[in-house]
Amino acid sequence: MKFIIHRDKLVQSVQDVMKAVSSRTTIPILTGIKIVANTEGVTLTGSDSDISIESFIPIEEDGSENVEIVESGSIVLQARFFSEIVKKLPMDIVEIEVSNHQATIIKSGKAEFNLIGLDADEYPLLPQIEEEHVIKLPTDLLKAMIRQTVFAVSTSETRPILTGVNWKVEENVLICIATDSHRLALRKAPIQQAVQTEHNVVIPGKSLNELSKILDDTDELIEIIITENQVLFKAKNLLFFSRLLDGNYPDTSRLIPSESKTNLTVNSKDFLQAIDRASLLAKEARNNVVKLSTLPGETVEISSNSPEIGKVSEEIQTANISGEDLKISFSAKYVMDALKALDGTEININFTGAMRPFVIQTTTDDSMLQLILPVRTY
Amino acid sequence: MKFIIHRDKLVQSVQDVMKAVSSRTTIPILTGIKIVANTEGVTLTGSDSDISIESFIPIEEDGSENVEIVESGSIVLQARFFSEIVKKLPMDIVEIEVSNHQATIIKSGKAEFNLIGLDADEYPLLPQIEEEHVIKLPTDLLKAMIRQTVFAVSTSETRPILTGVNWKVEENVLICIATDSHRLALRKAPIQQAVQTEHNVVIPGKSLNELSKILDDTDELIEIIITENQVLFKAKNLLFFSRLLDGNYPDTSRLIPSESKTNLTVNSKDFLQAIDRASLLAKEARNNVVKLSTLPGETVEISSNSPEIGKVSEEIQTANISGEDLKISFSAKYVMDALKALDGTEININFTGAMRPFVIQTTTDDSMLQLILPVRTY
Repeated sequence: MKFIIHRDKLVQSVQDVMKAVSSRTTIPILTGIKIVANTEGVTLTGSDSDISIESFIPIEEDGSENVEIVESGSIVLQARFFSEIVKKLPMDIVEIEVSNHQATIIKSGKAEFNLIGLDADEYPLLPQIEEEHVIKLPTDLLKAMIRQTVFAVSTSETRPILTGVNWKVEENVLICIATDSHRLALRKAPIQQAVQTEHNVVIPGKSLNELSKILDDTDELIEIIITENQVLFKAKNLLFFSRLLDGNYPDTSRLIPSESKTNLTVNSKDFLQAIDRASLLAKEARNNVVKLSTLPGETVEISSNSPEIGKVSEEIQTANISGEDLKISFSAKYVMDALKALDGTEININFTGAMRPFVIQTTTDDSMLQLILPVRTY
Repeated sequence: MKFIIHRDKLVQSVQDVMKAVSSRTTIPILTGIKIVANTEGVTLTGSDSDISIESFIPIEEDGSENVEIVESGSIVLQARFFSEIVKKLPMDIVEIEVSNHQATIIKSGKAEFNLIGLDADEYPLLPQIEEEHVIKLPTDLLKAMIRQTVFAVSTSETRPILTGVNWKVEENVLICIATDSHRLALRKAPIQQAVQTEHNVVIPGKSLNELSKILDDTDELIEIIITENQVLFKAKNLLFFSRLLDGNYPDTSRLIPSESKTNLTVNSKDFLQAIDRASLLAKEARNNVVKLSTLPGETVEISSNSPEIGKVSEEIQTANISGEDLKISFSAKYVMDALKALDGTEININFTGAMRPFVIQTTTDDSMLQLILPVRTY
């Protein structure tokens, strides 16, 4: 194998596939990056067996040359060293050559690295996925859907299924749901081209976080193919495979209240900042719990009290309050996470009493919903 | 006590004195910030008993009003909470009022915090220092002198005196020296106004690092007063006290070789980057050691070899080599630290054989010197 490549192209690809490489793997060859050069270009692969990422650098792109292939071939190089080396090479042009016995020479300017590689035939094959029932979404919409739900997955392994995001495809709508059993985030969006099948799968939160980091903010369509135990995301020159979580996701539809007793409309930023301030004293003593009380004159009070440190209270003018008076306590962090995910300037909060979950939505977009369980303090 | 203050002024001062506050203190009141309001302005103090910082906010400054004092007084507030609170207050104007029993109210807009304060009379007094023999230096020069030496202090408590920087005042020159016994950094500068006395003290590296973070990059003069066991830095509206380290600093003057056998002049950036690349493979296997070898044709080779990972070599064109041929091994980190501290475009390196310390200086400024001990590898 021998090829000459632009450093920047190589650095970008290595950075992408590195997202899948873990130093804590039980399969030694997976600490490496697989490099395959053929007449079409260079393909890099990284994997931790849960996530696999393949990045392709074509010989030519948009009329300019990326790579010159001198001899086809393949090698696996230690990911940690290879990624550091390519970042620090002195010149824009890099030559990579494998001589006998996987000895690999990386040259750039007057710097020459000799690395001991591994046989690429030993590297596990990626899942074979048939491309039926392709779902297409704009990449930026997919990123938004991930961002608005994935933060709510459980970080505890007590119920492993809750560490993933439930993806459902029903009647040409994609619905993403995450819950850690204290809060729930839901986002739905129509699928551009009609698909025949329905799906109900659970994608690990970690996979979605890594995917989101790699994808550009573009409105180009990304293709999504869901199989029984894998999901494949296909973007330009990029394949991202993730295994799915085993087991059934709980039915969350009955958790969302259909009616409410107290309704509040408020500026999202004012509300967020008041909760942030109230939580300053709550972090230590009260497990980050703050209290909301309705007051006369369309205002609410956000407050917190830590006997040893002090107390804080702040009144916020609302746009509207209707229904019963209310005093309710909740996790400041959960409500702040939800408000940040919603991206709205004005939000509606619908309460069904101090002990029941409440729903936060923007006033303009009902495709997103955040549900939070209150904390009992009385 | 009651005063009304601009939030930005308060935030800046709190941030400065926080540099001295440690959460791990054996004296509970030192987890607080002392606030004193009088007719001249507001003074904040933070201390961990090694370092004490006092920041003064005058009533008026450059013709604009900073503070309105309604009632003089003093209080100590929990530093961690107070600093977080002032950063997140909603409006530019903050009112701080102490009522009876150290109960303190902080108001801004509609947000109101009630903090339980401590009696300011319980707060330790700062050292009393007589202002004789004041040394004056431009602030940016002081910051440069700190940056160019403090990185070389020892991080091990085996020889506590080496965790400090040796400051000597001799014949109106300030000399700063730091060494961890593997390398030594030296920087000297003339003192602007003649001083009568001589000094030879050791300032904790941690104190100098914190001082450097607080000081602005300005050429305004800073005043330095050295006593038997304290040093005081006086900048505009700021006092920074540090205790000195007990004990005698080793005499380092005889460590610096007066003659050399191999002399090298090379571009600093090229040399640094080649060492950085060679160290990529050396980090793991060889304790970050790289090798330099003189070659014919005024070039040197930087190389490293890790049997299990691979090897790297790079030739660098020098501006000049004279003297004996040389193969020498050294810590890549120490040489890179030294090169970064020197700020030079072209550097001289003077070697006295493969087993003796070598000296790095810029070609243009002999007030700075970096000395490094080689590593034995043969």
